[in-house]
Amino acid sequence: MPFELALGARNRKSPFFEATVAAGVTQFTVYNHMYMPTSYGDPAAEYRRLTEGVAMWDVSVERQVQLAGPDALALARILTPRNLDKLKPGQGRYVPICDHRGAILNDPVLLPLADDLVWLSIADSDMVLWARAIAAERGLDVTVSEPDVSPLAIQGPKAEEVVAGLFGEWVRELSYFGFRETELDGIALVVARSGWSKQGGFELYLRDGRCGTDLWNRVVEAGRGHDIGPGSPNPIERMESGLISIGADTDDETNPFELGLGRFVDVEQETDFIGKAALARIADEGRRRQFVGYRIDGPPLAAPAQHRWPLHAGGKPAGFVSSAGFSPRVDGGSNIGVGLVETGLAEEGTELACDSETGPRTAKVAYLPFATGGS
Amino acid sequence: MPFELALGARNRKSPFFEATVAAGVTQFTVYNHMYMPTSYGDPAAEYRRLTEGVAMWDVSVERQVQLAGPDALALARILTPRNLDKLKPGQGRYVPICDHRGAILNDPVLLPLADDLVWLSIADSDMVLWARAIAAERGLDVTVSEPDVSPLAIQGPKAEEVVAGLFGEWVRELSYFGFRETELDGIALVVARSGWSKQGGFELYLRDGRCGTDLWNRVVEAGRGHDIGPGSPNPIERMESGLISIGADTDDETNPFELGLGRFVDVEQETDFIGKAALARIADEGRRRQFVGYRIDGPPLAAPAQHRWPLHAGGKPAGFVSSAGFSPRVDGGSNIGVGLVETGLAEEGTELACDSETGPRTAKVAYLPFATGGS
Repeated sequence: MPFELALGARNRKSPFFEATVAAGVTQFTVYNHMYMPTSYGDPAAEYRRLTEGVAMWDVSVERQVQLAGPDALALARILTPRNLDKLKPGQGRYVPICDHRGAILNDPVLLPLADDLVWLSIADSDMVLWARAIAAERGLDVTVSEPDVSPLAIQGPKAEEVVAGLFGEWVRELSYFGFRETELDGIALVVARSGWSKQGGFELYLRDGRCGTDLWNRVVEAGRGHDIGPGSPNPIERMESGLISIGADTDDETNPFELGLGRFVDVEQETDFIGKAALARIADEGRRRQFVGYRIDGPPLAAPAQHRWPLHAGGKPAGFVSSAGFSPRVDGGSNIGVGLVETGLAEEGTELACDSETGPRTAKVAYLPFATGGS
Repeated sequence: MPFELALGARNRKSPFFEATVAAGVTQFTVYNHMYMPTSYGDPAAEYRRLTEGVAMWDVSVERQVQLAGPDALALARILTPRNLDKLKPGQGRYVPICDHRGAILNDPVLLPLADDLVWLSIADSDMVLWARAIAAERGLDVTVSEPDVSPLAIQGPKAEEVVAGLFGEWVRELSYFGFRETELDGIALVVARSGWSKQGGFELYLRDGRCGTDLWNRVVEAGRGHDIGPGSPNPIERMESGLISIGADTDDETNPFELGLGRFVDVEQETDFIGKAALARIADEGRRRQFVGYRIDGPPLAAPAQHRWPLHAGGKPAGFVSSAGFSPRVDGGSNIGVGLVETGLAEEGTELACDSETGPRTAKVAYLPFATGGS
């Protein structure tokens, strides 16, 4: 039986909350101290819309950590192991953030709006506190804040048609993570080619929380001819695509190399970023675990995994499944999962014993992303 | 219609999760990236049990931030404006934590287990990141972690009977926030006189997550003669008692003086704690807002407020109600609330216009705690 979500002021409603209720939202999670829709009651239709049509997602929980001031870029360089030497205004970057031990804390998209203004569009951890602590302790001339900015994602193969209809043909020229500041009949926005799926799409960063319902309704209107509908970050599609969920796939020790993000770590650069020494050592010693996919046997999973499933090999701990569910597209219909596995067991096809919520199953290592046939 | 809570590995289940499901939990919130029970389906019975009998709460979401090493206490002193000169092992302290601007980030109970081992039993924000950033940037010899420790609260006027039955008569001698390391048939615990209510009670800090159900069942057994039952931190009782909920009552600018916590700020002490200069300035200039209670007119509120309600006076913003609900005890039955109000409007009885979820109401300022008649 499903559990009810308690609503109170400690966690916040999104500017799109009322619109999502009107659209029939049935289920939420909490992310960055805010409520995020996770279902409108028909998971199969929401998956189909994302993979074949176009869906709109309230992802205002992707809060922006704003770095403003002369040292904004200097702070960004200190926060991420990624080399930002060639950063250009208008072109976003995926930037892992690690602590001094090299453990990953978050994996935001960095949006350089100006030389003295940067946004980090974050996953689920209090990066505003982390960035503030570093800025203050180092005496940097930068103000760290969470501005009134709330992304609305438009995702799926038909997303570009909808967004071009709203803003014009120029959106087709945006590169991946490219963005532009603009407005829609007076509603201030940033439009970016981004989103937590591999189905293509855009995110509209609403810059005035009072206009949430207005923006939502304009997108609905623009999407009418393309059969747009509400949806949310999709647990099945993200596994197929091998996208990382910070906090689900990561623990207190996970480093970027384990997640396959080594290409975003430059320990040779001049900047003495946080975690540099630790990450250089890990690069040298090699990673202990790897982020992989799993094919999981047994009857189709009726719902996504509620918690991590431990993995064993020969009676010894081998890692975990952090997310699992039934993909209608992999192998024409298969249970799949993702998670961290010991490096020695990360070969494709390795069979592991898995303590699932519905009893013991076998998980077979698969490389990411999964092949999904048609797409 | 209530919304369903999505369950997945990004937020974690408590070690008591299975026991609370068996006990009939119906509703959860998310707090410190974990699920916390908020109702077992009968709010009136849960309130009565807390105020007249004894209730048990899964509050494992009160995560411990562990400071371990030679500089553990030095780090604690840097983190809080409270003077820790007279700290004694075995005696906890309520310690607000502020940022460099003097804004409050969290309000944990500090438990000094040894000279080189301190726990901060935290409210809902990522203090492990904050403490790690400060420790690393200052080069302190301390390891900051989140250990496998999960509090189970036993609250209410009959709590002492239950806890004495479990552990012995010595628990009656514990002072408020006093604690002792002990065990229960091999289950390692810390027993403290504490808890997020003013009804009296204890918290059992379970030190091995595998024993959650075992501990839960032992408490149920010990409480049988006292009519113990499941419950959770109670929104009505906390308002009556004037307890603070970080994140609900506070925003990005709230300082300890606004919350009435000035007695925990010592800007005269030698330690150069974080926020010292800012808090000295605020102490000098005076607080702009105050944490107060409200009596709210109109029909009884059927459920606690879902979000902040803005307050106005003479058409101008006056503050907000951060929590509201119906108290059966205040004035023999009254809608009450808490929140921040402009200092010029904080006089008892001041009438403010309030945008509630059920339309306009009048909120009248009341001093905290509320008088509850019999108790």
